[in-house]
Amino acid sequence: MELIFDAQELTAYLEEVFPQVREDFTVDTLSSGSLSMRLNVQDRHLRPGGTVSGPSMFALADVAVYALVLAHLGREALAVTTNASFDFMRKPQAGRDLIGQARLLKLGRSLAVGDVLVFSEGVEQPVARSTMTYSIPPKR
Amino acid sequence: MELIFDAQELTAYLEEVFPQVREDFTVDTLSSGSLSMRLNVQDRHLRPGGTVSGPSMFALADVAVYALVLAHLGREALAVTTNASFDFMRKPQAGRDLIGQARLLKLGRSLAVGDVLVFSEGVEQPVARSTMTYSIPPKR
Amino acid sequence: MELIFDAQELTAYLEEVFPQVREDFTVDTLSSGSLSMRLNVQDRHLRPGGTVSGPSMFALADVAVYALVLAHLGREALAVTTNASFDFMRKPQAGRDLIGQARLLKLGRSLAVGDVLVFSEGVEQPVARSTMTYSIPPKR
Amino acid sequence: MELIFDAQELTAYLEEVFPQVREDFTVDTLSSGSLSMRLNVQDRHLRPGGTVSGPSMFALADVAVYALVLAHLGREALAVTTNASFDFMRKPQAGRDLIGQARLLKLGRSLAVGDVLVFSEGVEQPVARSTMTYSIPPKR
Repeated sequence: MELIFDAQELTAYLEEVFPQVREDFTVDTLSSGSLSMRLNVQDRHLRPGGTVSGPSMFALADVAVYALVLAHLGREALAVTTNASFDFMRKPQAGRDLIGQARLLKLGRSLAVGDVLVFSEGVEQPVARSTMTYSIPPKR
Repeated sequence: MELIFDAQELTAYLEEVFPQVREDFTVDTLSSGSLSMRLNVQDRHLRPGGTVSGPSMFALADVAVYALVLAHLGREALAVTTNASFDFMRKPQAGRDLIGQARLLKLGRSLAVGDVLVFSEGVEQPVARSTMTYSIPPKR
Repeated sequence: MELIFDAQELTAYLEEVFPQVREDFTVDTLSSGSLSMRLNVQDRHLRPGGTVSGPSMFALADVAVYALVLAHLGREALAVTTNASFDFMRKPQAGRDLIGQARLLKLGRSLAVGDVLVFSEGVEQPVARSTMTYSIPPKR
Repeated sequence: MELIFDAQELTAYLEEVFPQVREDFTVDTLSSGSLSMRLNVQDRHLRPGGTVSGPSMFALADVAVYALVLAHLGREALAVTTNASFDFMRKPQAGRDLIGQARLLKLGRSLAVGDVLVFSEGVEQPVARSTMTYSIPPKR
């Protein structure tokens, strides 16, 4: 699978189409078929007790796979999330960013599928896993 | 399945353990095995274009089923979300609250399972569906 | 959502395109948006201990929602299963057929989504639930 | 995560508790946290057209992750499948075995989670992916 954007171009494009992504997420690495996305954990991502909230983990998984799809599809993409599954396996560690390591498993004409392992930075065992599916509208 | 809380007691308990829920969510109806939860849609729940964001829909599904589990388990509960699945089927309508209609499908000793249909208020076709699983720790 | 087949026509069409379905499955009821499919439980569906196997429950959920999609799409359909999720909640009762009660949640141009509750016949609490997604190829 | 069985001991144990596994499945490789399971594709696994059926892929994913859990838990295990998710991404190639490459993501006291990529033997792009969750009953 060939990349259309590099990490810098992808970041610029994400900020253009999703300006709210700028403060929360950083593309750490990008290569053919895989991407590492960082959630810059801040107070608004936390639940009482200091753990990252479920909705913030949803956002990380969705942004990570979506960005990976965009990196291979380029500017024409208007992909829409159609399915998501999550397994929450361990409590994230307080005071650490979350890292989502995404793989692109399918990039078809009408559907793209990727999965993500989510880690507390520097911790070996994953916090969560997720699979995301996107519907890709036909080109006009 | 017997209810331990009524809608008013459930609301009071949710506000006690999840104070951030107060502004966003309202228990519309509660009966044995089913609950209707409203997301009071505000600007912070929206994406550009006026549609409700994926993380906000995650939050609605999770709060709806979690509240339904609590209503049957009472104060001792410390349930933790272990699995979630979502199908996003239609775009929510701008300017309408989202309503999550949750059913409790299993309330076992160690696992609870429920599902939710999410609607834009007043619209017949569902926007999304979700299933949530919670792990219930053994009583001390 | 308008039906193209009634239960008898649907059964005939299923036997034409999936002859192996004949022995195992029966359409019990069909109406707009919902269908009840019976797995005629036989020895080959069982695990040691007399419980219905996971693959047999997969087959029931898939056939139920697929048949429901066909009943609304008619003969042109070549839908392909793209996503499936399952929650196994209780052990099926020995010596009883399984009944899958399917609902059609979305019938779009390119994707159809339905869910199923699976019951041991005559038992109130569901054995399992499942959601199935099908990709519908563009018409030629 | 420490292995209790090697591949040969695991195979012997599977044949003892699941005699029906013998003809269909082979443990190709086993190491800490990962296992490769082969579905020896035969006519009864096929649909008209020569593609492997959905229920057969369910069986492969379930047997692969279950065997991997057993390899780390040993003889005391009575794990029960509680959740399964699948993405079917490409048509399996006719005339080739299917290989399930399973990873153990969590081995907790009460829940185990693993995922699987399924390949047609010798083909680089995966046919399907799956995540399986097992409930592990408390030891007596």
